[in-house]
Amino acid sequence: MEIISSLNNALVKRINKLKIKKYRDEYGEFFAEGYKNVLDSVAARRDLLKSVVLSERAYGEFGQDFADCPITVVTEQVYGKITDTEGAQGVLAVFSGPKNVFDGSNTQNLVLLDRIRDPGNVGTILRTCCAFGYGVVLNNCCDPYSPKVVRSAMSAVLKCDIFVDISADNIISNGYELIAADMNGEMLDTIVKPDGKFCIVVGNEADGVSGEIMNKCSRTVRIPQKNIESLNAAIAAAIVMYALSK
Amino acid sequence: MEIISSLNNALVKRINKLKIKKYRDEYGEFFAEGYKNVLDSVAARRDLLKSVVLSERAYGEFGQDFADCPITVVTEQVYGKITDTEGAQGVLAVFSGPKNVFDGSNTQNLVLLDRIRDPGNVGTILRTCCAFGYGVVLNNCCDPYSPKVVRSAMSAVLKCDIFVDISADNIISNGYELIAADMNGEMLDTIVKPDGKFCIVVGNEADGVSGEIMNKCSRTVRIPQKNIESLNAAIAAAIVMYALSK
Repeated sequence: MEIISSLNNALVKRINKLKIKKYRDEYGEFFAEGYKNVLDSVAARRDLLKSVVLSERAYGEFGQDFADCPITVVTEQVYGKITDTEGAQGVLAVFSGPKNVFDGSNTQNLVLLDRIRDPGNVGTILRTCCAFGYGVVLNNCCDPYSPKVVRSAMSAVLKCDIFVDISADNIISNGYELIAADMNGEMLDTIVKPDGKFCIVVGNEADGVSGEIMNKCSRTVRIPQKNIESLNAAIAAAIVMYALSK
Repeated sequence: MEIISSLNNALVKRINKLKIKKYRDEYGEFFAEGYKNVLDSVAARRDLLKSVVLSERAYGEFGQDFADCPITVVTEQVYGKITDTEGAQGVLAVFSGPKNVFDGSNTQNLVLLDRIRDPGNVGTILRTCCAFGYGVVLNNCCDPYSPKVVRSAMSAVLKCDIFVDISADNIISNGYELIAADMNGEMLDTIVKPDGKFCIVVGNEADGVSGEIMNKCSRTVRIPQKNIESLNAAIAAAIVMYALSK
């Protein structure tokens, strides 16, 4: 097996470009890092896998687990130049971005994130959506295929139906009731659950749901709290998802 | 007003030491950073405030808001050397660590964190505990007074009753029922709520609740999920807190 030792290798150059949104969009690809993350991601969406990249050491340790995948092995030095992760395991994989079409065929309930910019929050919300069976719409959020989001979302970035920049009107016309999480809403404990498909709207942590989207929501819900303390956006999203999907 | 321009100033040196756990323990102090965070923290626990430190620019902008506090003003250069925060606002405050005594007088329900080491998770959980009125026990977790936890917890680090390294036996003998979050537990939706005081146990994200503590739990609860996907520890903690406190 050839071991790539040059940063001028085409695949190595491509991965470095995939750190930048412009190139992720241009190539329609992104990468995931870490042994377990890559293993789960490959299991979930083998159809989207382009290449597995292993450092020499990782190839010795984990090569067997990716025996049926297109593998490229690089020197530790080259891997070190690719990764931004401290204590990286030397395992990454390039995937085609899933092409989710938002149309009348969507049956899952949704979470609409309105300007959530923290990659850790977006990643955590993707995991929660995956666990509870929600699709997710990201409006003016950070890119879900950025390395930081993928690190925090892990394979949920491939398992979850992700839609980017879908208007509230489009969501409504596809049969969804929009329900915003808001400090002044109905109590979540006692709310009458929606009959049909619904879309939970979670706003920017600093200033909540934008007025434009709030105007399209038919209802608002409030998480009952004992003390006034803002909940983290990912926490608020999770509690509303849990309570409405029971 | 004197403007401190030397890194040899006693307070500046002390703050730099407070980044290290050893000195936080020795001095019984920690610091919080950021305008809103400091403002909320001072409002919550004025009794624990030692000093507010402002950069020259921040003094011009925010000085009025801290008019009744002991203020030290430092040059931008000195502030830049103190802070590790990108885009810091030039506002920090030193507090005495609250001394919470765990004994028979504790009436709040509790969350016991077992080896949660990620500062962001611990900070987020502190905010959630504060919102829902739980105290928190941190066993073998990262230090709740570290700058990273305080940044993520914000004023919850002062508002929430925090106890460190309290044994499960001690908690039980103080009248708490221990209930662990666990994949194999009773369904959270249908669980019979505890009659008395309870303590939710949340384990390390990688390997769950340790066997030693699990053996002391009278019950385990599972969060119902549609798909197999591990929930972030802070998300799992929040959902169980919400569901059991309704």
